[in-house]
Amino acid sequence: MANYCFGIDLGGTTVKMGLFSITGEVVDKWEIPTRKEEAGSKILPDIAKAILDKLEEKKIEKSDVAGIGIGLPGPIENESVCHKAVNLGWKEDVFVKAEMEKLTGIETKAGNDANVAALGEMWKGGGQGFDSIVMVTLGTGVGGGIIIDGKILGGATGAGGEIGHIHVNDDEKDACGCGNYGCLEQYASATGIVRLANKRLAADGAESVLRNDEVSAKSIFDAVKAGDKVANEIAVSYGDYLGKGMAVIGSVINPQAFVIGGGVSKAGEILFDFITEPYKANVFHGSREAKILLATLGNDAGIYGAAKLVL
Amino acid sequence: MANYCFGIDLGGTTVKMGLFSITGEVVDKWEIPTRKEEAGSKILPDIAKAILDKLEEKKIEKSDVAGIGIGLPGPIENESVCHKAVNLGWKEDVFVKAEMEKLTGIETKAGNDANVAALGEMWKGGGQGFDSIVMVTLGTGVGGGIIIDGKILGGATGAGGEIGHIHVNDDEKDACGCGNYGCLEQYASATGIVRLANKRLAADGAESVLRNDEVSAKSIFDAVKAGDKVANEIAVSYGDYLGKGMAVIGSVINPQAFVIGGGVSKAGEILFDFITEPYKANVFHGSREAKILLATLGNDAGIYGAAKLVL
Repeated sequence: MANYCFGIDLGGTTVKMGLFSITGEVVDKWEIPTRKEEAGSKILPDIAKAILDKLEEKKIEKSDVAGIGIGLPGPIENESVCHKAVNLGWKEDVFVKAEMEKLTGIETKAGNDANVAALGEMWKGGGQGFDSIVMVTLGTGVGGGIIIDGKILGGATGAGGEIGHIHVNDDEKDACGCGNYGCLEQYASATGIVRLANKRLAADGAESVLRNDEVSAKSIFDAVKAGDKVANEIAVSYGDYLGKGMAVIGSVINPQAFVIGGGVSKAGEILFDFITEPYKANVFHGSREAKILLATLGNDAGIYGAAKLVL
Repeated sequence: MANYCFGIDLGGTTVKMGLFSITGEVVDKWEIPTRKEEAGSKILPDIAKAILDKLEEKKIEKSDVAGIGIGLPGPIENESVCHKAVNLGWKEDVFVKAEMEKLTGIETKAGNDANVAALGEMWKGGGQGFDSIVMVTLGTGVGGGIIIDGKILGGATGAGGEIGHIHVNDDEKDACGCGNYGCLEQYASATGIVRLANKRLAADGAESVLRNDEVSAKSIFDAVKAGDKVANEIAVSYGDYLGKGMAVIGSVINPQAFVIGGGVSKAGEILFDFITEPYKANVFHGSREAKILLATLGNDAGIYGAAKLVL
């Protein structure tokens, strides 16, 4: 049996590379740039070369490698084909599996980056010990990944787990980046909470430390911790949108746990003070006891999950 | 290889029994009463006897039976154990699989009735040709079943696919049967649409044929077909709730198709005129092209799906 595998997190700027033991220890971890020129045609050859070089450096035989997993920012069909990945310069189908296998001679599987990160958190992160989780990534946008019985819910067109775009507000007048109105992402992302804050601050002249400086997810939760009343109101509103959104997902999926990651989650467990009540109040009772946990792998979730794809 | 299997739809009043060929043809179909007395302890023995009698009648050997599938109204763990089924008089765990296998000597699997019906519609009904569908059952309540890659999404506590209780309205003042406020079921069920109608009719004195008789889902859609303006408004409001609810599910699951069943679905394809637009307007674009289809198996969906459980 093979002893190693590769987990690759292919992003728009850099490729995070991980060499893992099959039990999930990081043997080596490094990055290479993502060369997007020429319609991104250099990306997979660059990755293949980096893998083969690493095997030579470490004196590992190909036969000792269980596989290569790759997470990337696009919809993936059947763990094989990527249908367009704008951030990589891929404008047409790229046969990731077939091309990588040709370049390296090593079995390869691909997955959407958000889904793969969820798999990583389930395997070695905040969701350890569970096999059915929903990962909620509160970054610039709101991403998601759903794992059912240890497997990614990829969806019919690779859009499974696009929880940032569930509709949570009928009264929204501004469009979301996706073109719809009232998406969860418009409130629960790092930009969403700033938007909620700016609206609250503009509503009246109530005193708040948030008026002193540029508002961010961090400054809002810092102010909450310091007892700022206005910041607390903003956090209540934030938690209401996010908790209600998670409640809908909970009623549909009935997961064992939610794992919360991304920039906003750096606020820590104080987030749960604002999410838990609206979650429980709005979810079907059978899903009320789902755990709400923090992600722990940070930027490494992608390489862990990618590695897990092939194990 | 075995040539037959049984599909059993165990309800609170009657047990629908089906003997199937393994290709899905109904060989025989009959019913027995559900005896709920003595905490429902007679139910499984009654079913077992009915199965063994049928085998004798048809001169089929046990070895020619692939298995027994049972759908029932309760949460099921691991296709084996039912945790409480109030409508059957089961107040504690019932080990459906183990007990049936002991009584019959034939391999048995159990599933929640709504989920099993979804499996049936995928196999031989409106969802034929797909393997990832969401079944939406618009009956007295709103039930649901989610099939991913041909398998039931049962959920961590057997509450997967409880789509009737996704939160769709922040302004609801009346509680849903589940205790929450603003559940999809409060609007999209057969009782929900009547509630919407009564509210609309009470709002002003606008002329409508609906004022002549008792309002029902059927009378509302009949009136829509006849060009009644008030009925049309009610249907628009109905479709808005249901379409938005389905949009949330679509964004989370990214199914190939929705299959709509239950009493309200008897209105037929006119339903789609009211669902499709709010669905498309509120779902993530990757899930916009999911098919919306009518269920075709009616009350037989349960026996078909139960049979499919063991195939």
